[in-house]
Order: sequence, then C-alpha cells, then structure tokens
Amino acid sequence: MKLISNLLLSIAANFHDFFLGISSNEHQRQQQIWGTKKSHRKVKLQEVFRSEMADPAIEITLAPLRQAVKEQGDLVRKLKADGAPELDVKAAVAELKVRKKILEDKELELTPQTSTFDRSKMEDLLKRRFFYDQSFAIYGGISGQYDFGPMGCALKANMLSAWRQFFILEEQMLEVDCSILTPECVLQASGHVERFADLMTKDIKSGECFRLDHLIKNFLEKLASEKNSTADLKAECQDICVKLDGMSKDEMGAIMKKFNMKSPTTGNDLTEPIEFNLMFATQIGPTGLIKGFLRPETAQGIFVNFKRLLEFNQGKLPFAAAQIGNSFRNEISPRSGLIRVREFTMAEIEHFCDPREKDHPKFVDMKDTKMMLYSACNQMDGQSGQNIAIGEAVASGLVANETLGYFMARIHQFLLRVGIQPDRLRFRQHMGNEMAHYACDCWDAECLTSYGWIECVGCADRSAYDLTQHTNATKVRLAAEKRLPVPKTIDVTEAVPNRAAIGKSFKKDAKSIMDSLANLSLSDLQTLENCLNESGDYDLSLGEGSVKLTKDMVSVKTSSKTVHVEEIIPSVIEPSFGIGRIMYALLEQTFRMREGDEQRCYFSLPAIVAPLKCSILPLSNNPDFVPFIKKISSELTGADVSHKVDDSSGSIGRRYARTDEIAIPYGITIDFDTLKEPHTVTLRERDSMGQVRMPMEDIAEVIRRLAVGKTLWTEIEAKYPKFEQQESSAK
Amino acid sequence: MKLISNLLLSIAANFHDFFLGISSNEHQRQQQIWGTKKSHRKVKLQEVFRSEMADPAIEITLAPLRQAVKEQGDLVRKLKADGAPELDVKAAVAELKVRKKILEDKELELTPQTSTFDRSKMEDLLKRRFFYDQSFAIYGGISGQYDFGPMGCALKANMLSAWRQFFILEEQMLEVDCSILTPECVLQASGHVERFADLMTKDIKSGECFRLDHLIKNFLEKLASEKNSTADLKAECQDICVKLDGMSKDEMGAIMKKFNMKSPTTGNDLTEPIEFNLMFATQIGPTGLIKGFLRPETAQGIFVNFKRLLEFNQGKLPFAAAQIGNSFRNEISPRSGLIRVREFTMAEIEHFCDPREKDHPKFVDMKDTKMMLYSACNQMDGQSGQNIAIGEAVASGLVANETLGYFMARIHQFLLRVGIQPDRLRFRQHMGNEMAHYACDCWDAECLTSYGWIECVGCADRSAYDLTQHTNATKVRLAAEKRLPVPKTIDVTEAVPNRAAIGKSFKKDAKSIMDSLANLSLSDLQTLENCLNESGDYDLSLGEGSVKLTKDMVSVKTSSKTVHVEEIIPSVIEPSFGIGRIMYALLEQTFRMREGDEQRCYFSLPAIVAPLKCSILPLSNNPDFVPFIKKISSELTGADVSHKVDDSSGSIGRRYARTDEIAIPYGITIDFDTLKEPHTVTLRERDSMGQVRMPMEDIAEVIRRLAVGKTLWTEIEAKYPKFEQQESSAK
Repeated sequence: MKLISNLLLSIAANFHDFFLGISSNEHQRQQQIWGTKKSHRKVKLQEVFRSEMADPAIEITLAPLRQAVKEQGDLVRKLKADGAPELDVKAAVAELKVRKKILEDKELELTPQTSTFDRSKMEDLLKRRFFYDQSFAIYGGISGQYDFGPMGCALKANMLSAWRQFFILEEQMLEVDCSILTPECVLQASGHVERFADLMTKDIKSGECFRLDHLIKNFLEKLASEKNSTADLKAECQDICVKLDGMSKDEMGAIMKKFNMKSPTTGNDLTEPIEFNLMFATQIGPTGLIKGFLRPETAQGIFVNFKRLLEFNQGKLPFAAAQIGNSFRNEISPRSGLIRVREFTMAEIEHFCDPREKDHPKFVDMKDTKMMLYSACNQMDGQSGQNIAIGEAVASGLVANETLGYFMARIHQFLLRVGIQPDRLRFRQHMGNEMAHYACDCWDAECLTSYGWIECVGCADRSAYDLTQHTNATKVRLAAEKRLPVPKTIDVTEAVPNRAAIGKSFKKDAKSIMDSLANLSLSDLQTLENCLNESGDYDLSLGEGSVKLTKDMVSVKTSSKTVHVEEIIPSVIEPSFGIGRIMYALLEQTFRMREGDEQRCYFSLPAIVAPLKCSILPLSNNPDFVPFIKKISSELTGADVSHKVDDSSGSIGRRYARTDEIAIPYGITIDFDTLKEPHTVTLRERDSMGQVRMPMEDIAEVIRRLAVGKTLWTEIEAKYPKFEQQESSAK
Repeated sequence: MKLISNLLLSIAANFHDFFLGISSNEHQRQQQIWGTKKSHRKVKLQEVFRSEMADPAIEITLAPLRQAVKEQGDLVRKLKADGAPELDVKAAVAELKVRKKILEDKELELTPQTSTFDRSKMEDLLKRRFFYDQSFAIYGGISGQYDFGPMGCALKANMLSAWRQFFILEEQMLEVDCSILTPECVLQASGHVERFADLMTKDIKSGECFRLDHLIKNFLEKLASEKNSTADLKAECQDICVKLDGMSKDEMGAIMKKFNMKSPTTGNDLTEPIEFNLMFATQIGPTGLIKGFLRPETAQGIFVNFKRLLEFNQGKLPFAAAQIGNSFRNEISPRSGLIRVREFTMAEIEHFCDPREKDHPKFVDMKDTKMMLYSACNQMDGQSGQNIAIGEAVASGLVANETLGYFMARIHQFLLRVGIQPDRLRFRQHMGNEMAHYACDCWDAECLTSYGWIECVGCADRSAYDLTQHTNATKVRLAAEKRLPVPKTIDVTEAVPNRAAIGKSFKKDAKSIMDSLANLSLSDLQTLENCLNESGDYDLSLGEGSVKLTKDMVSVKTSSKTVHVEEIIPSVIEPSFGIGRIMYALLEQTFRMREGDEQRCYFSLPAIVAPLKCSILPLSNNPDFVPFIKKISSELTGADVSHKVDDSSGSIGRRYARTDEIAIPYGITIDFDTLKEPHTVTLRERDSMGQVRMPMEDIAEVIRRLAVGKTLWTEIEAKYPKFEQQESSAK
C-alpha cells in the first residue's frame, strides 16, 4: 500500500512537466546527493528490452500483472467512452499508472542482471576531471545550477555543432537567436503566467518551502504506516493519494486542514497553498513597471517572429525554424544532477505546415527506420513497446502523420549518432490525459538511465495552438496565405463610411471610427445595418466611450469578390531537445570500467562528440621529442582536430588511463623509433586499446577522417601493422 | 560653448562603462530610431588615418588645435605630478578630452570625402532580410532587445565558431560554460553590487526615469543657449558640465536643486538622485530569500572556478580559460542599435600567469604585427595614433608586457580575419583616470563606424584583483603553488594549542578556538605571546564574543621550516569581446552599394563568416534542372558547405541581387548547358561579380576550399575559363 501511494505521488508530481515532461520513473531514485563519496550505490540496469524477454517462466510470473494493467486500461477506455466525470477518469488513469509501474518494476527485477552501474563512481570522475560541477561552490553553491568545465563544455559544444549540422544545415532550417528576457504579455498569451506553476506551502515562522504534493504524500504515507491507524484511515489516505493528481488548490488546502498538517522539519504551522510560478521574474528598464521573465522555453521566440520568418521564406509553407539557447525554471527543490536544473540549454525546432498537408517529401527516405515505439495503447494494455518501422507506424495511424514520423526518425538517428545506445532508447507516446492541452499527438524520446527512463526529446504536433494564442493577444494575424487551385468567388459584407461626413462631425476621432468600422464582425455589421434601417442611427463603441453614427455617415454593402488565396493558420510540429539531459544519459550509457581494473574508468563517447579527438603522448620528456610534438600538433590544428599534448611525467599506461578518463578516442605516442627515418608513430584506440604503427605524415589526415566518421578504426587496423607492445599502468 | 558642454556630458555619461567601456564618440550621433525610413541620413566617413594626412594645408589648420591639446595634456601631467586634488585632475582631464574631440572632429571634417554611408539604407536591408530586428515587435517591443534572424544568427554562429577555432583550439584554452543566474554574494565580492550603477532621477508623478547626467547636461545646455543668459551664467553652466564626470551623487543633487530642475517632458518635480544598479535582479528558489542577478559579464564564472581549472591544468601556470555566453545589463535608456543593448553575447578569456613572468613563448611569432596604437601619451599630446610593430611597442614599454602584447596582436589578427577593415581599426590605451581601478594597463580595440570609434574588444591586465576579491570573500585561497628553484628555509611562528586543556575547558567551542588560533596573523601572535608573558592570559575573540585562554592552554613557538614551493596569486590578462558590437561594426564596414545602382546593396562579408557560403540558382524552373540541383546540394552538404537553393521566379540578375543582399559570396548557376555532357556550371563571386565555367564535379570541393580560405578567387579565375554572359537585373 505504501508503495502504491508513494508511486502515485511521484506521478502526481509530474503534472506541471508538460514542457520538458518527465517520465514518472525518474522520481523513484532521487534524493541522491551530487557526487558524494558516501553512498556508492550500484544500480542494476535493465540491459534488454522487455519484448526480447524470451524466458517463458518469466512471462508466467508477469501474466497476471499484464492482465491487471489491461483490465484497468479497458476501464479507462470505457469511462472515457461513457463521458464519465473527469475526476473519475483521472483516478482510473492514476491506478492504471500504478499497475504499469508494478509491472515494469517486476520486469526489471526478472531481467537477467548483465551489469551494474556505479553512479557515484561516475560522478566522482565527472567532478575530478571537471566535466561539470556545482556552480559557485566556493560560495556554498546553489542547488540546480551547474558549471561545465573544459571537457563538459567541449562535449556540449560538439553535441550542439552536430545538432546544427544534422538538423539546421541538412534540412535548411531557419535558425534564430532570440531574447531571453521576455515581457509578461508574451508569456500571458502562451499560458505560462497562468499555468506554469507548482503548488507549495511555507512554514509560517521559518519560511521554509515545501512542494505541496510531496508534503501531503509524505504526511499520509507516514500516517497510513502507523500501527494504530485503522483500516478505514489507511484506505482514506490511499484514496487521497490516488486522487491527488487531479486535485485543485482548494481541495489540497482542505486536506491539509483536515489532517492539521504542520511543517515536517519544525512542527510550525503552514500557510495556505500557494501557486508558485516556476518562471524567474525581473523588471526590465529602470521604472519597475515592465515585468519580465526569463524564458521557460525557447519556442516562444520563434512564434513571435513567425511573420518575419514566413516572409524570409518568401511566404511559402512548409518551413522549419530552430533555436538553440538557454531557458530557465525556478524549481522548488531541484535534484537528480543535470536532469532537473534551474538553467538549461534547449534546442527546439518548430516546423510550420499546412494543417491539411502533413505529409513529408523526405519521409520515404526514413520509412524503414526501425524504432522502439511504446504507444499509449501498449501502455493501457500492459504490453511492451514494439520495434517497428516508422513507415508502418504512420501507415497504421499509430503515429499521427508523416511529418511527425519523419522527425521522430530523425531524432532517433541523431541520438544514435551522438552515442545513445539503441537498446536504451524508446519513444513513448503521451496518453490522452497527460498530453498538453494543445497537442494532437506527442511522442517522447526516452533514454534509460539509473534514474529510470528519462525524457530527453519531446516531439509534439502542437496544431495551431501557439500561433492562435499570439494572434488573439496581439491582433496581428500570424497566418500564411495559400494560393487556391482555382480562384473562388465569395460574398464580402463591409461597412462603407462617408469619410467627409464623419470627418466633419468627429474631427480627430474620425480615424479611429474608420478603423473600428473596418474591424466590425459580420454580426456587428448585421446589427449596424438593422439599427440604421430601424432607428436611423447606431452607437459605435470606441475605446472607452461610444459615438452615434447616422445613416448619412455609414452604410452596409455586400458584394461579390474573387479571391485567389486563402488564409491558413499553420500547424506546428515541435521536436524539443533537452541538451543537458541527453548529455547526462550519454555519459551514463557510455561509462565503462576496464575488465579486472575497477579503478580504470572511461567514457566510450563517439569521436564526433568526444571533447578532444586525440592526445599526443611523448614517451618521456626527452628534448628530442619536442620538434615532433610541435609538428604533429600543428598539423592536427591545421586539420581542425582538437587535441591535447600530455607531456606530464608518469608511465605511458598511466597517461593513457588519464586520457581515457576524459574520453579521448585516439592517442598518438612518440617514442624513440619515431626519431628514426622514416618517422613513425603509434596510434591507439580507446575502447579496444588496440594499437597500430603508421608513418607520421599520415597521422593528421587519418585522425581527421576517424573523428568525423569517414574512416572506421577497423579499416585502420587492416591497413597498418599492429603495434604489439604491452599497455600497463606499471610499465 | 554649447558644443563643448554637449561633448563633455557625453564623456561624463561614460563613467560606468568600465566593463564594456564605450568610447566617447559614439554618444554623439545617437537618438537614431532603429531602421526608420524617415531619416535617411548620410554619414561622412573618415576613410584614412590621420597619420596619413599628407596635405600640409590641413596640418596648418590643425596645428593650433594640436597645440591646445598638448598644453592641456601637459597641465594634466603637472597636476598629477604635484599631487593636486582629484577633482582638479578630473576637471583638467575632462577639458583635455573636449580639446581632443574638437581636434578629432576637425580632422574628420578636413579629410577628403571618399564615400558616404547611408545608415538607414543598411538598417532597412538588415530588417528586410531579417539579419536582426527588435524583439517582441508584435507586442510593441522593448528597447535594447534584438532577435537575430536566420542570416544574423548564422553570421553570429560563424563568428563564434571562428573565435573558438582561433583562440580556444589553437591556444588550447580551457573553455567553460557557467551559470547565468549569480547569487548576490559573488557580485558583492566582484564589486558589481556596489559600483555597477548609473545615477538617475524619476518624475515624481509619472515615474518616467532620466539618466541624471543626461538630464543635467540637457538642462544646462538649454539654459546656456538662452538669449538672456548672462556670460557669468553661461560660464557656470560650462564649468558644471566640465566637472560633472567627477561629481558625487550629492553634488549632482545639489545642482538639480540649485537650478530647480523639473521633468523635461511633464514639468513635474523630480526625485533626489537614485543609484540605479544596472544588473537585473531576481529571486532564486521559492523562499524569496536568495537574491540573485543575471550576470553582467561572463568573467566571474571563470574566477570562481579558478581552483578546478588550475587542478585540471595539473596545478601549472600559465593557462587561459575562456567562455562564450550571454550577459545582461538593465540600461536606463538603451539606443544605438546593437551597440548598447540589454542582453548581449560576450566571449572572454582569462589568462592566468605568474605576476613576475608576463613574457609569452609565442610572442616571437607575433612581434612584427603592425598595429595602429593610440597611446595615452598620444591622446594627451594631441597626436595621432602610430602604426607600429607590437614587438617594438613592448620593447619600448608602451605596452606593459609580452602577454598583453601577444593578445593584442591576436585580437588584431582575429578582427581582420572576420572582415574588419584594417584602416578602421585601432587600439586605444586607457588613460590613467579612466582605467578600471583594478587594471595595470588596458587597450581597447576600437572599430570606426558611423557612431564614431566604438570599443569592440577590451584587453586589460587586471593584475590579481579578481582572485584576491573572491579569496577575501570566501576564505578559499585562489592561488597557485610554484616550485622554488631551490628550497628555502623560513621562520614560521605559530600558536601551539594544548588540545586536551582547551577541550576540557571549552567543550563544543574547542574546535572554533583551534581554528581561530590557526588563523592568527603574525602581529596577533606577537600580542598573544606578550599577553601570556605579561598577564598569563589572553582574550581570543571568537565570532561575536571572546574567550580567555591561559598559559597552560596555548603557547607561541617559532621554528624553521624548509619550503619547496611558494604561493602566488596569479595575474590575469583579460581579452573581452563584445560579439554584437563586432558584428555591427563588421556589417557597417562591409556594407556596399553597386556602382551606378544604389538599390543594389550588399554585404561584402568574408566567406568564413558569411551566413551561407553559396547559392544554387537554376536558370528557370525547368524540371530537367531538378536532378542537378539535388546532386549539387547533396555534395555541398557532404562537404559541410552551407548553401541555399533559390528556385524562385525572377531573372537570374534579380536573384543574384537577392543573394548578394544576404552576403552569399558564391553562386552556382545551372543552365541549359549544364544538361549537356560533360556537365558544367557557372560559378560567380559576389564582390567582383566575375564568373567562371567549371565541371560540375569540381564545384563542391572548390567552394569548400574557397569558404575556408584555402583557395583564393583569383586562383579560380586563373584556372577556369571566364564566363562572359552579362549580368543585369533586366535580363
């Protein structure tokens, strides 16, 4: 029982996460203190997909759990079909999620344990070699903020550069770079001012803040676990927990009162629930009158520039715009390292298209891409995901349209290219109730980590939501014109003002009267016509007051017009990448220990994103080596290959281990044979530790090609003689 | 007279600008409304350096002005030498600046007019092709914020990529990426909380804000120009304006009162002077207790990570760290387009070195670089800058040290590489009184634009200022250890506590007593020893109270120790690039009109930073061209060459003009001859409009090499046959 309410609340905690939405699993194993050496916890990893679980004995154990999920899924479907009250549906969905979670945990438990992952070991390496670490640590630091050191920064820069190449250049997207400080009105229109909030409560004396759902959950959990609690009380606690996800601020407040909840740390009274908006607020300009926020996502910058971008694209649809930049959210209690932070880099694409034409010309090139799709239906039925081709998924209607499917396949390709493991990547479809209110269909690319499956990329069809919101707020029509196949004739009704008469009567107000007349709706025009016919005049509202117009000043005419274009509000397909999360998943998935030597850890990052592509290691600090180091270094610079000279003391094996730690894929060793003509060097590959001997003049070009994936290591091994000398740290 | 006070105030307005310090000239021609079509103002540009002004008649006119500057420069020197009061020195310096400005204006006036620059024409093009434009314009926009569209964004990305290549990769700097949100304590230590402010005053009723120095200047200017003002009053106005730069808040307040200054827009009363801090404030976390700011510069993120970076560099000096990122300042009234904005991208380098070893191993490679140096001495003497080699400048002591000189030469190289015109670039040395309080020597790379000379890169020797400040604030010693050439023996005096006795007497306070004893200064230790000897006890202050220690608890011992290392606080040399300013200067300096056709404007940007490297233009939309477009496009993508297919209707000449506008340096035309075997295409160069015919299979590699500067256009013209067909927009 405790487990259930525990799980439910961590699901409930997700309700605000619709932007960088978080899968529920990751909430399970939090509370980890960053990089501490105290808790070397080993996390068992699920190494294979459930669909590949072939052992029949396991399926027998899982069958009743699958059945339980399916029954609940059917109940949810029925409630929805019957139009049951929203709260009932939500409660049923919450129960469904609990059952799914139990099934998933059991699957994980029964999976053969192929490896363990030691998160603390990895975090210690990340800190020690300064991939990233807490910001402002010498001042005590602030949770949820990280600084990237040289290796983390280079990894991030390489990932962004690969992203720009893969999406912006290959797809010829329109990249923009918009302001971070955003005036309130923009975020009012987007819905963030109203909805981008978590509920919290404060200790009345100490001011300590608690996320309200966490507080209620913890309180009821404790209460239900007490020995003298009655079965009725326990059932009530559980019932509340189940329903917490759908509760309003007032309902939660009533529960706090009913159970007389106090601060868990001081026992002091708590405030009423407070809606805490997660945006950082500030004032723009010196007057203190212009309220602004740090943007919570980069997307809005693209939407408000829609007209300029459409014009840049010569008025034609479809086109995609993209932006890489920082966003901010003031988390109440950030944790889980890079996964939930207060400032983070996003890369977002907004693909604008005709809502009736969501096919994609390049879909045909991607249609055979096989991906693990974990559909809403799979989730409702307690089934596993399916490994199917995206072409099939679109053809069967599982994925809403070709454009969405195209981007999912491209996201899949990109994640694999930067080094995400294919067996730890899945696309999970949002279920009806967790989908943002504006989305037609939404799939999250999730990566498996020791925190569970975490959402790294969202891919949503947002329909016309955003452009419509900004159009309504600004009265600037964010729409495209589309040439009709054949011109059509339409009736146009409009007010025809007598400019002279209006000008004479109203002088300086004349212009705003004209403007108002031009903006009357069809029903306003009918009223105008009726009034003029019946009473001979009409009260036109004008800002705060109104003016009386008479028959000689205005009339209503209906005429036929031939139109050649129609106006459409484009649909938006939005792939949205959380760069820090992808980096974190990548670091976890590529973290390795050398067999038989747990102290030798490294990251098996692909060369394309590795912070540095190669190291130059002179065997000793013999001055004869210096000209060779300089020559190779300058040739590598010429070939745009980032590298590091490590001429520190220490055996060559120890120095290899140091370069492995920072994920350098290739190492060039200069030894005494190098001094002889023809000059040769050793090239070593990080993952296999294989070495070859090659002419020094080849080295820069070989590494350039290896680094961009134009040559494979196996080709190098085939071409050059193997270098057999032992690599050991004792050497 | 009016001119003088006008100028002085715009100089005074600079007093806060010591971070991205602004040269005074740019304040002259502001008030320009962004991109308006109303004021097509043509600005006369100074095309040659004053040192190259050969006409003796001009020098005769300038001689008395030069003499006036020199006399005042000598006066300033004398006042400083005599230790005159600070206000007198400041007034003399202000007068010196006025005389310099008069000289500079006269030089500009007498320079032969070789071209005019139409800023509005350029701004209209920048808006029309969406290089950049005002942020949130559909919501009315906010001044000082700009969004970069596809072309501006690509230009910026290419510039940053060139910067990363040129500085970080070539010099193997340690790149970091730090948090933007910065807690108050960090910026208290750096001095920003106290000093990063402008004075302003508010309209008591409307709340409208005015920068105080601007307000006083405008008021006194107006007063002095009134017909009935006496000579005495005029002199007083001028005198105040001269001294305004050095005035305190109270002094300015007294002047406001004396002249009974009111709001210039409403006539309402004004508040007392208010210090308005230019940092954007916000709250971090939900409690409202952690005050934070958006960083006003990226440098502090590097300083607070000094220890991690030193460790990453295996404890060795010198090393350089670098950061590219956004910074923010809440300007009271931003203007001048991209030059003075509220959020901007910086690229900063902090080179840490031993304060006694500021030589640089690679200086020898740069020593012959000739640069226009405008020294403090030149400025004081009314002379022009000198075009001299950096090696000579360092040897003569004009530039403080090799490392500073090395970076100045590298900055010079970089700016030329991205397209800044050598005859519109100078390095201006800060004069003693305008140098930031922490800087030993500081040179600004200034680019000539229609706003005057604007500072684009600062290059300062900040000595140990920053690390010392953070060390004092955190008690974490931000220092490096240096191995001594020979170990040395030193006397160490320390307090030796009797742990048992202290523990027994003070229990839980024992630890803080030990800590306090360990931190006593040498003079404290002497006092301790004296007290113990004289009275047998000593009052040790401990946080808020103190404890009495007796002879049995502590003694003072002096002993000899052999030390192998010494601790040094590194000096910092800081090159700091304002990316938006460089972009603006670059756009202005490369803006061109075709001879005889003012409507055909373009940017002559070097290929390395041009937003796109090439265009593909099919002669018509004949379907036979499509496979050729596809093939070339895919080959260009494979060679990492950014490009754009323009298959819109319109003559080829009109389409060339469109691609010229967005600075595309190369254009490939596919025509009917392309269809014949062997397939050939036309390649056109933007600036010369020259065209050659070449085999289609060569094109991708040719453009790749042209784009990175490995081939010159002249080589292409020599290798391939010229294509003679006329290019005209009428074709």
